[in-house]
Amino acid sequence: MSRVHNFSAGPAALPEAVLRHAQSEMLEWNGVGASIVEISHRSAEFMEVAARAEADLRTLLTIPDDYGVLFLPGGATTQQALLALNFASPGQTVDYVVTGHWSKTAIKQVKDYVDVHVAASSEAEGFTDIPPRADWQLSPDAAYVHITANETIHGVEFRHTPEVGQVPLFADFSSSIASEPIDVSRYGVIYAGAQKNLGPVGVAVVIVRRDLLERAGQPRADIFNYASHLARDSMLNTPPTWNWYLAGLMFRWMLDQGGVEEFARRSAAKSQLVYGAIDASGGFYRNTVHPAVRSRMNIPFFLADEALTARFVAESKAAGLIGLKGHKAVGGLRASLYNALPVASAQVLVDFMHDFQRRNG
Amino acid sequence: MSRVHNFSAGPAALPEAVLRHAQSEMLEWNGVGASIVEISHRSAEFMEVAARAEADLRTLLTIPDDYGVLFLPGGATTQQALLALNFASPGQTVDYVVTGHWSKTAIKQVKDYVDVHVAASSEAEGFTDIPPRADWQLSPDAAYVHITANETIHGVEFRHTPEVGQVPLFADFSSSIASEPIDVSRYGVIYAGAQKNLGPVGVAVVIVRRDLLERAGQPRADIFNYASHLARDSMLNTPPTWNWYLAGLMFRWMLDQGGVEEFARRSAAKSQLVYGAIDASGGFYRNTVHPAVRSRMNIPFFLADEALTARFVAESKAAGLIGLKGHKAVGGLRASLYNALPVASAQVLVDFMHDFQRRNG
Repeated sequence: MSRVHNFSAGPAALPEAVLRHAQSEMLEWNGVGASIVEISHRSAEFMEVAARAEADLRTLLTIPDDYGVLFLPGGATTQQALLALNFASPGQTVDYVVTGHWSKTAIKQVKDYVDVHVAASSEAEGFTDIPPRADWQLSPDAAYVHITANETIHGVEFRHTPEVGQVPLFADFSSSIASEPIDVSRYGVIYAGAQKNLGPVGVAVVIVRRDLLERAGQPRADIFNYASHLARDSMLNTPPTWNWYLAGLMFRWMLDQGGVEEFARRSAAKSQLVYGAIDASGGFYRNTVHPAVRSRMNIPFFLADEALTARFVAESKAAGLIGLKGHKAVGGLRASLYNALPVASAQVLVDFMHDFQRRNG
Repeated sequence: MSRVHNFSAGPAALPEAVLRHAQSEMLEWNGVGASIVEISHRSAEFMEVAARAEADLRTLLTIPDDYGVLFLPGGATTQQALLALNFASPGQTVDYVVTGHWSKTAIKQVKDYVDVHVAASSEAEGFTDIPPRADWQLSPDAAYVHITANETIHGVEFRHTPEVGQVPLFADFSSSIASEPIDVSRYGVIYAGAQKNLGPVGVAVVIVRRDLLERAGQPRADIFNYASHLARDSMLNTPPTWNWYLAGLMFRWMLDQGGVEEFARRSAAKSQLVYGAIDASGGFYRNTVHPAVRSRMNIPFFLADEALTARFVAESKAAGLIGLKGHKAVGGLRASLYNALPVASAQVLVDFMHDFQRRNG
């Protein structure tokens, strides 16, 4: 058995301890005579797993009591559609701040339901910055303001929660949730696919201020209704139990490691290592994002000689570093440094980058 | 390690061989240095797993080429909503045949989008029968006719595909897919949550006649568009990769065991054992479903003395038989006999039933 350094953008690395734990219980969980993937979501045993996962996430993220927490199947994209259906009237104005690929995807999911107003965009500058708050043109009657806290492809990240007044702020935190302390009470909705910083693929977390659930929203199926899901503790129908269980193991691991304060330190250390290597390479490696909004989670970077990109990918893989190929939308290379990636792996990457430059510079 | 006899209605039993296989690969899959839950869904390695799962399912169910196959997150309920959004115009008439709890749930998901016409219902008879086809009142201009092939709670099952003319027939096969040969070409859409006969929770399978995807349907998010999912091989966004992989292991296991013909034999053997014990109990056990439509998958049954129900559940659990408590909507007891449940387990249940009756009759 040989484990590599995994820089995948998601699905992404999980802690070896979490995988070993899940492995040990794969045929029989907790003395029930069956795997957790084989038992009813409504059994007392699974209900306890689910409740503990929620309690641990609440502790981890310091979620106030006036926020509900949902565990729903799939990734963040479905939630993007449900935001409009649950919280905006048909055709109502909604404000979106566009800072990269995923902001645009978020708009694509709601454009048939609401009147999308782009309050600010950095598209003209190639998504290398976040538009200054002073330049945002917010709509006073918007149902909500939507931001993408971290752009996985373009590598820009909000480093502060923007002040948006009385209109609730909704944020896609898929790729940076639990990587540093945030003040949940500043948000109306926080949502995230779990397959990056929270570990397992196949489940999304939605943190929603309860009073917002009183909004009528739009005609929709019951299965698209957040209030229905919350009333049934995310068991309106069969939830992705195994994924939920694995997320719970990850929450427990993160708490045991020291919580989000510790992951903020590790994220800073990892990203400083990699950005440092890029910036000290004399142009051999290049990252074009404005330093103040560089993502601590996803670092897209490019070789001055693009012909070397394929060699970098192949040689790094051979050296035991996977997932470094850039997203096809932008090309180049990308290192994702989520919570389960050890600081030591970032150092291994930096060492490889130095060696590759020495051999090809 | 002690594995029990698992009669859960879903999430349900998986073959021990499938669980052992997944367990052996939990930390490193196929020499890639990472678990399959940790690698990109767009990696060549996962794409091959996904493609093989689809090919095996096509073989298993004899799916014609003019049908697309989707692997989507979550259970069947989301698909119930998407049927109306993808295949009916706003307010268009759709025909539903109501044969139990899940037929009614299917209607609940679409009533805000279409004009639901109940073509037939056995609710007045307590869902103990399926209305004869001759009594159905179908709408000539319906977008589709919807049936629930097997009712997990009420224990009734269509034993033949009904003829409905030119209007496409849509069917929820969540709890009976791959339990016997069916002629897919008789259906417009077949959908199923995988957590019953196909094994893993957290992924649903949709089999759709390709020409139906040309219908305009209703305004909807891109993530709710079946055509978009099919064009991207169910990777419009991050799919539930681990669940898909586990489903693939289950498909391979089912093919190795002899395919749906073999599971039809086993399903007949298991259900005949249990119904035989009920019918030979002299009224100690009772199943009220009309024999011609008794489900081979889910057998709800009741004790003449209801006060004994809790004792049956507790004693059977102590004897290593789990999941026998009835659904809260109907009470009593229920034995689910999905593909992964061995015939020998059904015999163990029957032996327990005899013993319980001897001690309490």
